[in-house]
Amino acid sequence: MERWANTAPLSLRQIQVTDTFWKKEMELVRTEVIPYQWEALNDRVEGAAPSFCMRNFKVAGKMNRERQRLGQAYVEPAYTFRGFEALPEDPENPGDHFYGFVFQDSDFSKWIEAVGYSLTQHPDPALEAVADQAIDVVCAAQQPDGYLDTYYIINGRDKTFSNLRDHHELYCFGHLVEGAVAYYQATGKDKLLQAAVRFADYVGSCFGPEEGKCKGYPGHEIAEMALVRLYETTGEKKYLELSRFFVDQRGTRPYYFDLEHPESVKKGEENALRHFYHQAHLPVRQQEEAVGHAVRAVYLYSGMADVARLTEDAGLYAACQKLWDNIVEKKMYLTGGIGATHMGEAFSFAYDLPNDTAYAETCASIGLVFFARRMLQIAPDARYANVMERALYNGILSGMALDGRNFFYVNPLEVEPAACRQDARKAHVKPVRQKWFGCACCPPNLARLISSIGSYAFTENEDTLFVHLYMGSVLTKKTGGKDVDICVESAFPWNGEVRIRVRANGAKGFKLALRLPDWCDSYAVEGAGENPCEKDGYLYVQKEWGEEDTISLSFPMEVKLVEAAPRVREDIGRIAVTRGPIVYCLEEADNGKDLHLLSLDGAAAPAVEDFCVCGEPVKAVLCPGYRRVADEAAEKEGLYRPYRPARKEAVMLRFIPYYTWANRGENEMQVWTRVE
Amino acid sequence: MERWANTAPLSLRQIQVTDTFWKKEMELVRTEVIPYQWEALNDRVEGAAPSFCMRNFKVAGKMNRERQRLGQAYVEPAYTFRGFEALPEDPENPGDHFYGFVFQDSDFSKWIEAVGYSLTQHPDPALEAVADQAIDVVCAAQQPDGYLDTYYIINGRDKTFSNLRDHHELYCFGHLVEGAVAYYQATGKDKLLQAAVRFADYVGSCFGPEEGKCKGYPGHEIAEMALVRLYETTGEKKYLELSRFFVDQRGTRPYYFDLEHPESVKKGEENALRHFYHQAHLPVRQQEEAVGHAVRAVYLYSGMADVARLTEDAGLYAACQKLWDNIVEKKMYLTGGIGATHMGEAFSFAYDLPNDTAYAETCASIGLVFFARRMLQIAPDARYANVMERALYNGILSGMALDGRNFFYVNPLEVEPAACRQDARKAHVKPVRQKWFGCACCPPNLARLISSIGSYAFTENEDTLFVHLYMGSVLTKKTGGKDVDICVESAFPWNGEVRIRVRANGAKGFKLALRLPDWCDSYAVEGAGENPCEKDGYLYVQKEWGEEDTISLSFPMEVKLVEAAPRVREDIGRIAVTRGPIVYCLEEADNGKDLHLLSLDGAAAPAVEDFCVCGEPVKAVLCPGYRRVADEAAEKEGLYRPYRPARKEAVMLRFIPYYTWANRGENEMQVWTRVE
Repeated sequence: MERWANTAPLSLRQIQVTDTFWKKEMELVRTEVIPYQWEALNDRVEGAAPSFCMRNFKVAGKMNRERQRLGQAYVEPAYTFRGFEALPEDPENPGDHFYGFVFQDSDFSKWIEAVGYSLTQHPDPALEAVADQAIDVVCAAQQPDGYLDTYYIINGRDKTFSNLRDHHELYCFGHLVEGAVAYYQATGKDKLLQAAVRFADYVGSCFGPEEGKCKGYPGHEIAEMALVRLYETTGEKKYLELSRFFVDQRGTRPYYFDLEHPESVKKGEENALRHFYHQAHLPVRQQEEAVGHAVRAVYLYSGMADVARLTEDAGLYAACQKLWDNIVEKKMYLTGGIGATHMGEAFSFAYDLPNDTAYAETCASIGLVFFARRMLQIAPDARYANVMERALYNGILSGMALDGRNFFYVNPLEVEPAACRQDARKAHVKPVRQKWFGCACCPPNLARLISSIGSYAFTENEDTLFVHLYMGSVLTKKTGGKDVDICVESAFPWNGEVRIRVRANGAKGFKLALRLPDWCDSYAVEGAGENPCEKDGYLYVQKEWGEEDTISLSFPMEVKLVEAAPRVREDIGRIAVTRGPIVYCLEEADNGKDLHLLSLDGAAAPAVEDFCVCGEPVKAVLCPGYRRVADEAAEKEGLYRPYRPARKEAVMLRFIPYYTWANRGENEMQVWTRVE
Repeated sequence: MERWANTAPLSLRQIQVTDTFWKKEMELVRTEVIPYQWEALNDRVEGAAPSFCMRNFKVAGKMNRERQRLGQAYVEPAYTFRGFEALPEDPENPGDHFYGFVFQDSDFSKWIEAVGYSLTQHPDPALEAVADQAIDVVCAAQQPDGYLDTYYIINGRDKTFSNLRDHHELYCFGHLVEGAVAYYQATGKDKLLQAAVRFADYVGSCFGPEEGKCKGYPGHEIAEMALVRLYETTGEKKYLELSRFFVDQRGTRPYYFDLEHPESVKKGEENALRHFYHQAHLPVRQQEEAVGHAVRAVYLYSGMADVARLTEDAGLYAACQKLWDNIVEKKMYLTGGIGATHMGEAFSFAYDLPNDTAYAETCASIGLVFFARRMLQIAPDARYANVMERALYNGILSGMALDGRNFFYVNPLEVEPAACRQDARKAHVKPVRQKWFGCACCPPNLARLISSIGSYAFTENEDTLFVHLYMGSVLTKKTGGKDVDICVESAFPWNGEVRIRVRANGAKGFKLALRLPDWCDSYAVEGAGENPCEKDGYLYVQKEWGEEDTISLSFPMEVKLVEAAPRVREDIGRIAVTRGPIVYCLEEADNGKDLHLLSLDGAAAPAVEDFCVCGEPVKAVLCPGYRRVADEAAEKEGLYRPYRPARKEAVMLRFIPYYTWANRGENEMQVWTRVE
């Protein structure tokens, strides 16, 4: 493996995604999610709880103007900390207070990030104008010292950075940076970027190894990777150093969060456990197990990978690899879902992957994609891209309805709607997607991921284009001063035939690195020159490029029955159906009630069927199996009765892509089916 | 079915239990539990959290004496309500405050009840003297008006009966009555009974249908059945009427608990749901589904059955039958465990019987036995006794270690110790029994049940002795002025041969009603006269009795493989092993780690083996099965890999009685095993 390959994602300005599959998702984000989200940020959605996001920026801006008028450093507000989520006592007269979750500012940042990405793929002056006005509102709230978090601007700056553990201040900072960079890269407009730089400089003046500076680190990670992005955008090394400081400071003793919250320190309690949730139980280089809040965890690991890559830090990279392996080998659902328990939205212990109480938050899988791409940037190895693909087509896409209007936070692998309603232990599992969330993290996160999907499909270094995902695209890669024009045609995820047309335009030494997916045992390639070589799951194509070369790839998409490692107790005696990158599930709409009574014939040959789920053309899989037949005599025997080999009838089971479930009303679903 | 049979449990003074199996349990209670409990009540257990129980009575008594000295109605204390559980701020100087759970008084009442029962089987003057002194302490705390709950005596009588929902005042009252009646019936001493009567009269002066009286009812039921017992002991009908008032008042609108707790009433919330926990969502006659806190529920249903029997109330009886059927047909574990969810220690929805997160509180199964016997008293039908037997030998006895020194609250049907330690969702499931509990409900409840087990084995009416449980015993039944002497010999639960010797002593018309267990398909009987007849699961023997008659019964105890109704999702594809009344389980100690990798050959013939668990001679069951064999090549393929039919090796599985599990150190256990 080529360590420190230091490849970069392709700029979205170099690529147009034309892919039938992903373009549709991007259009949903553009036409449904982004406009809806803007209304939500402005509290204009009928029937939804107000976000207060833009309102908070406006209140903070007003206080700012007042401060300038009075010549004060800042206006001292009536000091009223209102806990994690503040709601107006009198909604008619909310007054100049902060409302909503403490991290409400980040809703704007995620939105502007998605807008930026979207504009690269679909220029939209009207949207851009709205975004520019929003940026004006946000920037007006910035303090003279660069600080920009409305919770503390409104409630009182004297408490700034006093509750890093719980108050998401550095999380909002990180998202602001991410959004600002994205918007700048998309539009070239730097007003928000400059604001982010000033905020970053302020943060840098407060935190660091120097004497007198705060030794804390974010309670919810993201600033680590955001600062690296700011470094890569501005070239200012201090941002990379601040990121490294946050990474290295984490988990050192004495625990910063204990110093910050002495009231949480109980005598005799094992300290480390208390810090699992924040991944702050050990210095990150010593961490070998993915623990705690899953989104926080993968955001941290993403930042660690970024820092490792740019500082060529072998120890930090080794920690990233161990954590990656721990997730993928012991803590990941077949769908790419992570975070098995709703208690703390967290990783559970190794091999504990319950299907019906799964948490598997959409955002956590998105974070896993962030982590995967950063590992690919260090060293291109298909095992990262395989997981990225798995998460994207399954556990992430399941977070959004086919119409782009409803969302899952939680992505279970088995659902009985009656149980979700009646069993408080499953209260987090929803049998139908929800309109929006008070704590709206997943929909905006989906929006920013999907609208930037091209930067996950392709990375590059000086002479090589890495194709991680076979996504129809038109792109340009610069190499040796020449523009190589590339066109990828694919019908993924339904068909494994791929054509890549290359116009090298005289570029010398240009290479293509084509991922060989783990779900096919063989492949065919044409037009790859004489000696394409395989390495770490990629086919490297280096040849004398003509005027236009076409490389044809064929990845057979066979239906595969898969099983889990026997240590996964919940899946013992069960199998799942996959085809290509797609994980399948049974849904009641196709197979009737009581899916647990169905079983699969492990020896039978499945067939592929053209099918439609709510207008979405998909490949379904038909697989012979059985349905346990009710035994009327036995039913009368009550709850427990003598065992008899089950009476069953042969049935044809229809499996649909997991990401399309719950689009046809509330019904049962299951991924893992008993095998006979 | 003979409704309103109105049979009574045999007085413990008429019976000596000689049974090898149960006598051992009773001796454990006598020699281990009762002495330990007395130390606990007096805060003398090294390392255990103090109970404060007897201390509270002493503090209340001291305040009482002070009151008399000053001629006041009662001493007004520093009014310091300290919530549900109060602990001293300074343990060295606790002062004259109430400490412990609000229901701490009931610890004494349960203890004195167990002591009473135990004295009938094993006279012990030293224990009786200790009990008499304890009674003196308790009675000294009683107020002039009869009130006797130390929480309010110490904290201030002005709040008496102001929080029926949460503060267990009528629960403590109920337990006091139960204990007082038991001790009186055992010893003939009525000091505590008189105190209970005065307390009951005080409660009766406060609650009732009359104008000006409180229309509330207990937040935790038990007073209902306790008052019936007081009625049956004293003949005072007012206690039956008060019980009926509590039963009928429950769940009427407006909800009493809403009037008491207006702060709990949220606008727009469905009211009934809020009252499920207390079974106060509907008038009890309209209740058809067992819901809410399982112990509360079965205590209520027991009281309902008592009232129905004594008032020959067909509507109330019909409700009892519906609730019984709902539990037994939809909400009961194979072990007789009830209350499937730890959230509210409550019944879950129909057929939701998860094995590894089961709650199945020991006390709830004990309450189910209370309910069962009361249903038997109304109409002898073996279906009640079958469940009683199932709960006693399995889900209840599992609550106590074989050495009588450690206890389970929660009785899961599947345990992986690592999961219990690492998964907060299973925090309630303990892989080893605990020494004692701060909230010590189960051990004292076990003590009072086991030491009175004879009154569950046998009930009687004028001319008939009902044998519900085949328990070695020597007993006397009065009929027509004659004493019929009966001796039951049995080696239950290991051997189904029973001999019953009867000396009728000239009694005319004496009948035996012998339960025909549901676990055997046939039986043999000798010496039952010419025309024994079967009715509702009992064999009625009426014959010309000679000087000494011997009836021999033979109930074949075959190993049976049982399955659950297919609607129990957790048990689909799995079977359990039973023999006679005993439910079996696999334990790691006998079968190695990873019990989920084992499967049972559903067609193979099991064998019975004499076995020993920590000195306890039992019958184990050996059953051919398989262990899935690790596939080293597959292990390297990671978490998910192509399905292959499992490689497995033939193994002999050893099943031990469920009640003996967790006596050989922490290890895995499972009741339901996959079948192949």
